[in-house]
Amino acid sequence: MRFALRTAIDYVPRFPESPIRNIVMPLPPSQRFPAPALDTLPDDIRTRLLAVQEKSGFVPNVFLTLAYRPDEFRAFFAYHDALMEKDGGLTKAEREMIVVATSAANQCQYCVIAHGAILRIRAKNPLIADQVAVNYRKADITPRQKAMLDFAMKVSQSAQLVGDADLEELKAHGFDEEDAWDIAALAAFFGLSNRMANVTSMRPNREFYKMGRD
Amino acid sequence: MRFALRTAIDYVPRFPESPIRNIVMPLPPSQRFPAPALDTLPDDIRTRLLAVQEKSGFVPNVFLTLAYRPDEFRAFFAYHDALMEKDGGLTKAEREMIVVATSAANQCQYCVIAHGAILRIRAKNPLIADQVAVNYRKADITPRQKAMLDFAMKVSQSAQLVGDADLEELKAHGFDEEDAWDIAALAAFFGLSNRMANVTSMRPNREFYKMGRD
Amino acid sequence: MRFALRTAIDYVPRFPESPIRNIVMPLPPSQRFPAPALDTLPDDIRTRLLAVQEKSGFVPNVFLTLAYRPDEFRAFFAYHDALMEKDGGLTKAEREMIVVATSAANQCQYCVIAHGAILRIRAKNPLIADQVAVNYRKADITPRQKAMLDFAMKVSQSAQLVGDADLEELKAHGFDEEDAWDIAALAAFFGLSNRMANVTSMRPNREFYKMGRD
Amino acid sequence: MRFALRTAIDYVPRFPESPIRNIVMPLPPSQRFPAPALDTLPDDIRTRLLAVQEKSGFVPNVFLTLAYRPDEFRAFFAYHDALMEKDGGLTKAEREMIVVATSAANQCQYCVIAHGAILRIRAKNPLIADQVAVNYRKADITPRQKAMLDFAMKVSQSAQLVGDADLEELKAHGFDEEDAWDIAALAAFFGLSNRMANVTSMRPNREFYKMGRD
Amino acid sequence: MRFALRTAIDYVPRFPESPIRNIVMPLPPSQRFPAPALDTLPDDIRTRLLAVQEKSGFVPNVFLTLAYRPDEFRAFFAYHDALMEKDGGLTKAEREMIVVATSAANQCQYCVIAHGAILRIRAKNPLIADQVAVNYRKADITPRQKAMLDFAMKVSQSAQLVGDADLEELKAHGFDEEDAWDIAALAAFFGLSNRMANVTSMRPNREFYKMGRD
Amino acid sequence: MRFALRTAIDYVPRFPESPIRNIVMPLPPSQRFPAPALDTLPDDIRTRLLAVQEKSGFVPNVFLTLAYRPDEFRAFFAYHDALMEKDGGLTKAEREMIVVATSAANQCQYCVIAHGAILRIRAKNPLIADQVAVNYRKADITPRQKAMLDFAMKVSQSAQLVGDADLEELKAHGFDEEDAWDIAALAAFFGLSNRMANVTSMRPNREFYKMGRD
Repeated sequence: MRFALRTAIDYVPRFPESPIRNIVMPLPPSQRFPAPALDTLPDDIRTRLLAVQEKSGFVPNVFLTLAYRPDEFRAFFAYHDALMEKDGGLTKAEREMIVVATSAANQCQYCVIAHGAILRIRAKNPLIADQVAVNYRKADITPRQKAMLDFAMKVSQSAQLVGDADLEELKAHGFDEEDAWDIAALAAFFGLSNRMANVTSMRPNREFYKMGRD
Repeated sequence: MRFALRTAIDYVPRFPESPIRNIVMPLPPSQRFPAPALDTLPDDIRTRLLAVQEKSGFVPNVFLTLAYRPDEFRAFFAYHDALMEKDGGLTKAEREMIVVATSAANQCQYCVIAHGAILRIRAKNPLIADQVAVNYRKADITPRQKAMLDFAMKVSQSAQLVGDADLEELKAHGFDEEDAWDIAALAAFFGLSNRMANVTSMRPNREFYKMGRD
Repeated sequence: MRFALRTAIDYVPRFPESPIRNIVMPLPPSQRFPAPALDTLPDDIRTRLLAVQEKSGFVPNVFLTLAYRPDEFRAFFAYHDALMEKDGGLTKAEREMIVVATSAANQCQYCVIAHGAILRIRAKNPLIADQVAVNYRKADITPRQKAMLDFAMKVSQSAQLVGDADLEELKAHGFDEEDAWDIAALAAFFGLSNRMANVTSMRPNREFYKMGRD
Repeated sequence: MRFALRTAIDYVPRFPESPIRNIVMPLPPSQRFPAPALDTLPDDIRTRLLAVQEKSGFVPNVFLTLAYRPDEFRAFFAYHDALMEKDGGLTKAEREMIVVATSAANQCQYCVIAHGAILRIRAKNPLIADQVAVNYRKADITPRQKAMLDFAMKVSQSAQLVGDADLEELKAHGFDEEDAWDIAALAAFFGLSNRMANVTSMRPNREFYKMGRD
Repeated sequence: MRFALRTAIDYVPRFPESPIRNIVMPLPPSQRFPAPALDTLPDDIRTRLLAVQEKSGFVPNVFLTLAYRPDEFRAFFAYHDALMEKDGGLTKAEREMIVVATSAANQCQYCVIAHGAILRIRAKNPLIADQVAVNYRKADITPRQKAMLDFAMKVSQSAQLVGDADLEELKAHGFDEEDAWDIAALAAFFGLSNRMANVTSMRPNREFYKMGRD
Repeated sequence: MRFALRTAIDYVPRFPESPIRNIVMPLPPSQRFPAPALDTLPDDIRTRLLAVQEKSGFVPNVFLTLAYRPDEFRAFFAYHDALMEKDGGLTKAEREMIVVATSAANQCQYCVIAHGAILRIRAKNPLIADQVAVNYRKADITPRQKAMLDFAMKVSQSAQLVGDADLEELKAHGFDEEDAWDIAALAAFFGLSNRMANVTSMRPNREFYKMGRD
């Protein structure tokens, strides 16, 4: 099998001597932990990296950083997919709004910039991600979406204070119990992701910054 | 297959008419989301519930609460096991210290009480859990363990401020890169767990309160 | 007069040569200030120590730590008794709830562990103290008790914001003016106690951890 | 025995018909709790009120407010006197600096204004109290006094973080163990006082505002 | 042209050899940046300094400190005058209340002490400034003025949270759109001033402390 | 004189009947205060609006929002120009970094998005603005620039704590007294701007989002 992972900043081949290592990472995906040796990755993980590269044109650095620990990698993306790929009351754009707003509160560079790109694409709106990242209270979103983000932010920043009134407020905006769980789980899961990205100093790939801005 | 899950507060059979539903939950494991119907659980999850009951003598409520969402359940426990069951530089008692200290900072009743019990057992020390929960800075632990908890608390409460000096401090106490990742990942993962427990109002089983106090 | 104060951690005689000093403190009651020399204590304070030992079976470390300053000792316990021993609208268990909840917010190891024990005994409830310490909003207490703790926590953590609406809220739950004063005074007095315990690094006696858990 | 307590805002006789009630309180000393009926006060408390009036020319409202509860009154002032009247390494002006700085952090109107007056007098310095109240870091005090206030503020605002390094810092500025206890106890005791004053909405007497400004 | 600027602490001539430099600053107006050489000041700034000295009897240190940068000086006082000298729904005393309350929250010694003096004079009330500085919620002001300060404090401390409900609350107390802008602009402008004063360590002139106290 | 101001969101003429009002604001520049009637603006302000339109191709909404108050407008832009247009030790890109980092901390949508665009252009770097906005500690900037932003953030968020050590730290990175003033003044001035933008709910023009991203 031949493949070439393309990632990160400016596309200078790092291991030009071997086709299998034809990867471009002048800066590592994480500034604090070593990038995994690609040819030693377990097959399932290498397959996932290739699949995402096929789809996106590059390998987002979160995949390379977390591959440092294969078992945690598998659990992380299983959790991620369970929350982001499922059907349900929240649109895909709304899920990305939750990721962007809570990741901004946690000052996670990787998540705000990478999921900001995805939000712009999902919402077909080039302005929404920067608005939600800086202050979602002023963003061009619906009152229902603001209620969704109010709840997500409370789960993210002070879950110990969540009470029945918060769930009533969600219900008043048309959300049901399944939605409430989804919002909470997204805020909780990306809180984990934000912390790992901040500790590893994970770097957003250059591609994300401009994606979806037209 | 016959089985009976035993859990929660005071062991009054809830569905006495059917052996398969011979479960005892006068209070639900979560106050906000419905307990799953046991006979509709996927086989792998029911098997895990029976296994943990076999080992512990009861089913901790986190299993019943999270079974509401089978895919998330599987990812959650895969992540949990990857962090808690692996070998490495941290002892099992030290991992539980991280869980208890960070869960107390997040005011998570379930995690502090359930993992407090496990910490007492792992450390063979009936005093340690309450000390770590209230103020780990005053607990009877080693300076190395205090440095470990300082870092875990920073990841838990303000990961955006983590910098190279924090990793140097860990290294000065004999921790290596693998340990740093472990500490960070434990603080991050239980931050997720704390938020889900606070939102679902998950209740610690009665058994945990007294376990390991002798 | 012969007596032997029994206290603290594991009952190894410290001064075995003299019956009057037959006290057991492998660790001092406070880690930062010297334990008072018992035979030099003023008579009234020694009498109080003996009385509490008679009643409890050991001398709680708060008595030994504060005896460092006899005049402050007398004022402290006079204040304590005025608030804890008086009759009034609050039950003794409710007063202990206030102590436990506010001391947890102040991260006072001595007060949470010692008064947690007393709360379990007063409430005849082995679960209540841990619940109130970690997150009183999720504890198995009445709405009236939650309103009581909401007010106590506000006095403890941000008394400058207390306004008429807080007192109206108390009244709506059946508390009168006398009760409001009691709640406020308990939160204020144990705030003093928490600060002294944290500065002196006062250690909870081993006995408290397990008391009232059956 | 005849006496007339003089207090508060603008000296309009309140109960002119009776010499014994010749008191002037157009506004009560506390806005939330009733002023005690003077002729029903216990003798020792009435004696103290008369003594302080003799000395100061008026009765500070803290005496009238706390007389609502005679036992607590006695304990409060016994504690106060034990800390403020004792000899020791801190000058009386320095003790008042601690009261003013920590009371400002707690936004206690009574304590900042009343003890600001006493600080001006003790320090024979008409500028010092306002400087310490607004931002003690910029006040015209010695580096040793700044270290004293740094420690007092940490005890007042985050005693759970006090560690050995804080005591070392004090020692480096020439403070000994007795001084450390004094500073901590003053910050802790006035924290109690600040909370009671904020809850009762205790009002500073008009006299304090101008005292010691010349 | 001859003139003598009189300022600051205790009136010892600093440059006695020259009439034009007959200024008295034993301590500089700012502790961190050099006082400007008066004879090198641009004419318009020197004229303003003389005018304010004429009116007040001394030169407030904010003029001397900011003269370090003539262009910023001009913009600062143009902004100041646009907000403080204009007509409008807020009285001059109310504007000073906003300055004092928000400057106290920002712990700005110069602004609290200097504008406290002006507030006492504008309000013809010797008590109001200290009350507003320590805790405006307990000050002897009207409910309308409390609503005004609630809004000013929110703009000052957490403007990102200001929402429509805050403006509705203002309107309910009789404020219109123009007033809302005024309150916000005052809180915002003095936030700038507070930061410059804290960084430069600007010192309030001795005269302010006592002004308006009779 | 004929002119047409072009601004804001999607270029639908608002007042098509009159050439002089040929402006396009389907959404007002501020959501809370009325856009000024252009033909009633003072000449100097209209001239400035035309000049900026000439240069940028559109009128940034901050000009239209603040024109509500001409005198404040003039002072605001005089201050702005004094800080942003002057020569000095800080490059124009560095000044924009300060604006972006502190405005993000204040959650000011207008300032982060508008000045983020200018930062990209000044730094000729399409990635820098998003990095600085989300978490400047992880941005691809020099250690000297991080020290500059550490100081700017302290002035912005807790100026009351600024002390001599902060200025020493700046000096250690090669900044002099003039630079220290510049950094402080930029943080202070844009704190004012952030508060006005948040209160008025000022909207970034659509053009800013994409500017400088190639």
